[in-house]
Amino acid sequence: MELWYSEKQTKDLGITCKVRETLHVERTRFQHLAVLDTYEFGRMLVLDGAIQTTIRDEFIYHEMIVHVPLFTHGNPRRVAIIGGGDGGTVREVLKHPSVEEVVLVEIDGKVIEASKRFLPEISCGLEDERVTVIIGDGIKHIKENKGQYDVVLVDSTDPVGPATGLFSQEFYKNVYEALGEDGLFVAQTESPFFNGEFVAQIFTSVSNVFPICRLYLTDIPTYPSGFWSFTMGSKKYDPLQVNTEEIPEISCKYYTPDLHKSAFTLPRFVKELVQKNE
Amino acid sequence: MELWYSEKQTKDLGITCKVRETLHVERTRFQHLAVLDTYEFGRMLVLDGAIQTTIRDEFIYHEMIVHVPLFTHGNPRRVAIIGGGDGGTVREVLKHPSVEEVVLVEIDGKVIEASKRFLPEISCGLEDERVTVIIGDGIKHIKENKGQYDVVLVDSTDPVGPATGLFSQEFYKNVYEALGEDGLFVAQTESPFFNGEFVAQIFTSVSNVFPICRLYLTDIPTYPSGFWSFTMGSKKYDPLQVNTEEIPEISCKYYTPDLHKSAFTLPRFVKELVQKNE
Repeated sequence: MELWYSEKQTKDLGITCKVRETLHVERTRFQHLAVLDTYEFGRMLVLDGAIQTTIRDEFIYHEMIVHVPLFTHGNPRRVAIIGGGDGGTVREVLKHPSVEEVVLVEIDGKVIEASKRFLPEISCGLEDERVTVIIGDGIKHIKENKGQYDVVLVDSTDPVGPATGLFSQEFYKNVYEALGEDGLFVAQTESPFFNGEFVAQIFTSVSNVFPICRLYLTDIPTYPSGFWSFTMGSKKYDPLQVNTEEIPEISCKYYTPDLHKSAFTLPRFVKELVQKNE
Repeated sequence: MELWYSEKQTKDLGITCKVRETLHVERTRFQHLAVLDTYEFGRMLVLDGAIQTTIRDEFIYHEMIVHVPLFTHGNPRRVAIIGGGDGGTVREVLKHPSVEEVVLVEIDGKVIEASKRFLPEISCGLEDERVTVIIGDGIKHIKENKGQYDVVLVDSTDPVGPATGLFSQEFYKNVYEALGEDGLFVAQTESPFFNGEFVAQIFTSVSNVFPICRLYLTDIPTYPSGFWSFTMGSKKYDPLQVNTEEIPEISCKYYTPDLHKSAFTLPRFVKELVQKNE
């Protein structure tokens, strides 16, 4: 028997992966959760029928959501992660020696449990003594912690279901308040190829709140179209003004200091999406 | 009834697209050829069960295989295209006012016929008076035309079947001979994510022949992993030394002068594939 996991990435486009074994399936309080072992990408976490992360390509997403903002700040000590229950973002944040405390606020504790059990390469940082894990509402946490963080990373699912509120201008205002005076944040903001209007709308919302707003891109093989965007809102530091020669060497498979700036060099069709607010 | 076109991009990974209509299917002397009208990507050309180009995302591949080398040369007058029967590469080459002659050598005339009939937005340049279309063997053409071209573009299918000979060091030697003293060439060279060893091997072969060898990347939604590589071999001009401020404005949806250099900024895992020869 051949088992294939098939996902509709859009209503007219799908990805399908040959499965070695279904490791875990459950319905949590918030979503459907599965861990599959696939031949091409190794073990993968699937939430509500959408691939979140896989052993083979997770390094791209996690390195890019973390190192671009943390090296833009330069000296981050307190970092909040909203979502990110798989732990990959925590693992990358902990590579920065300046970081004293990481607070991870994940709404669904079952994601953390599944990742600890089935994705130890990704979740390995969650037990670090610098990390505080809160099972709860990230929107509420951000609202209640003013001026507390140097960097906030919004490592969420797609803007449906539990993550919807993480893509609103009101949330970005609260993130602004949760940051210190030189703070900045990054959120994953979907595919500019398939969701151009959404990317433009988020960029406008973030621009309305933060003096510096920048979009950067990477390529994630298991996400729709590959093209994936991250939006940065910053109070003081501009990622394009960073002296990349001063970025120290850290162990990465994707990120490099040169890539730090080139990730912000947008193809014309993406540039046009955000241009009016840049 | 719902019709879906499914393609195994690797033996364990597939892409599947909902089809509005099957416009054309034939077995040519060289390959199986189909033109499908899909909901997500519009009309697409499929050769031997692999998506070659689609109305929606073709601009990325065609702009990147053309404008990076042509603006690296600066004053290309004679350009050869090996393969590329759909015409998209010709269309982009013709945007360069310095170009006096384009010779397209496509082994399979049926690809040209199908593209003219079903993909007029892509094939539109093929009737231009500056273009000579040769239905024949590109390897032979290159061997027989020494010192004739400023730029050679190898716009081939995957390295199986008719295109195999286009990925050999012997072919690159003949390309070197076919170029003028300041000539350069670019070839599409597969996915560094799925075919890393192949990319490294081609890079070595090209480095053995050309004094300047560079790899650059783009993201193509309908190709395996999205990540796609192009390898440039050049006798004189280095794409990284181009003064991008002098690149004139041309009508593009993907390429920009800024992207000209940033496309060569490789993620670490790709950099490591080519590093020993750079």
